Amino acid sequence: MSFIEISEVGPRDGLQSIEPIMPTAAKKAWIAAEAAAGIREIEVGSFVPAKLLPQLADTAELVAYARTLPGLTVAVLVPNLKGAEAAIAAGAHKITIPISISETHSLANVRRTHVQMIEETRRIAELIAAQPEDQRPKFEGGLSTAFGCTLEGMVPEAVLLGLAEQLMEAGCDEVGLSDTTGYANPAQVKRLIRAVRGVVGEEACSGVHLHNTRGLGLANALAALEEGITTLDSSLGGIGGCPFAPGASGNIVTEDLVFMLQSMGFETGIDLDRLLQVRELVQAALPDTELYGFTAEAGVPKGFAGGAY
Amino acid sequence: MSFIEISEVGPRDGLQSIEPIMPTAAKKAWIAAEAAAGIREIEVGSFVPAKLLPQLADTAELVAYARTLPGLTVAVLVPNLKGAEAAIAAGAHKITIPISISETHSLANVRRTHVQMIEETRRIAELIAAQPEDQRPKFEGGLSTAFGCTLEGMVPEAVLLGLAEQLMEAGCDEVGLSDTTGYANPAQVKRLIRAVRGVVGEEACSGVHLHNTRGLGLANALAALEEGITTLDSSLGGIGGCPFAPGASGNIVTEDLVFMLQSMGFETGIDLDRLLQVRELVQAALPDTELYGFTAEAGVPKGFAGGAY
Repeated sequence: MSFIEISEVGPRDGLQSIEPIMPTAAKKAWIAAEAAAGIREIEVGSFVPAKLLPQLADTAELVAYARTLPGLTVAVLVPNLKGAEAAIAAGAHKITIPISISETHSLANVRRTHVQMIEETRRIAELIAAQPEDQRPKFEGGLSTAFGCTLEGMVPEAVLLGLAEQLMEAGCDEVGLSDTTGYANPAQVKRLIRAVRGVVGEEACSGVHLHNTRGLGLANALAALEEGITTLDSSLGGIGGCPFAPGASGNIVTEDLVFMLQSMGFETGIDLDRLLQVRELVQAALPDTELYGFTAEAGVPKGFAGGAY
Repeated sequence: MSFIEISEVGPRDGLQSIEPIMPTAAKKAWIAAEAAAGIREIEVGSFVPAKLLPQLADTAELVAYARTLPGLTVAVLVPNLKGAEAAIAAGAHKITIPISISETHSLANVRRTHVQMIEETRRIAELIAAQPEDQRPKFEGGLSTAFGCTLEGMVPEAVLLGLAEQLMEAGCDEVGLSDTTGYANPAQVKRLIRAVRGVVGEEACSGVHLHNTRGLGLANALAALEEGITTLDSSLGGIGGCPFAPGASGNIVTEDLVFMLQSMGFETGIDLDRLLQVRELVQAALPDTELYGFTAEAGVPKGFAGGAY
């Protein structure tokens, strides 16, 4: 079976969704511990104004730190050109600009239309192209609310496909489907991956960002795997996304995802025991935040050694 | 898309796993409310000695009551011939005898070897055959711990296949794979369904009983659906199975399963809104028991009307 890349988004999507601000030293320890457990890509933060998301105000420092960890791809989110400038100055390896398929959500979230977002994307791509070749970050367009929107409800597939094409044309290296609202179902995941790949090509759509809001996170991940997706986003302890209690975490729980992948025989490069231990560090730094995860509660099956059975 | 039968096992697998004893009147109200919401099969109890499982001591009365609900298949579990006699006397439509693939678990659980369990199965099949034709319940052999055992760890596939064959030879109408321990992964679910069907035929293996102990319940259900399984067990509010807190319910949550199926376009015959309302009744009767369920917490997607999207 093939290798699946797990992109840990907890330090960004997790921490931006909760009230407590994790100290920078704790974030560094978290990032280092996950990298040591074998995680090869971490979204360490987002370059947004600190007054909007004070939880992520230290993103530049985290990028600089994470770059010192060997073999780690350091990813960040940017909402606009200004954020991309900061991300490039900090030395991020991968930059994602999210574009809401729901224009209502785009206007509510970043006060920009689709046309404006594509224009911003083009400017960022030009900025990246102007960098020395060995310093150009990978540039992804994030197709957010791709599976539906809490404001608009279902979003037209034609809009999704049109934006996927425009993002690539504007200069993205790839696009990723994002279930921002936790609306996705497995049949839809398969259908939309196929549809987007039909427009941008298989190579340019290799990752998905799924949530677990309605409990379908791992079923949707399975559907994505069956379509040949090779990068999956998740969050340690399921922190973030749209929090509902109890058990209704927003993000897919990294530990549960790793257990599923390993038990099915996928290679992850991750030491699950070490990954599970990272929870203690995060919980200590966020004493009032509930960490989710079934595998952490139940333990791995008797005799499980990280391989298929 | 095809019709998927959801077999509600909460009144049996749920209630046997928790300490509080639900009053018979509340159980009847629960069963009636689920039937009214469109659930067509309910496992209402188990014919075991009341001193072992006082929670299920009223099973005969529940069978008699549930039989009065039009269109409902009334299922029960029996551990032995004595239980089967009681089930037939009560008028159950469907009888399941569970056999642990792990003989260690079988000895610990019912103090019987595999040979003894097959012998018991044969006696039950003979008893059923001796009933008037229109009063013979359907007889299922439940292949429990099929995906691994908390005592033995992994169980040999050859033992599983051998027992599946022997159960059919002893007179079962069908066999069902049961993930008693929550060990199953989607690749294993597919592999074992194919293997068991290779031995007993497709028709004789149409249902699976999955748990959600490690969060893979719906992913495993998806895998089973993709293999053509048409009956899935689940429990309202995820009650039962092996309880771990928080969020780590044992059984698959019926409401989440129904949402997944409907959103994918499967027919279920179930009114999800009415099903979600049944939670209130159950919660009122079990005030100290935590009900799980992501869909209940998050609500259905905006614009969702029970069909595919």
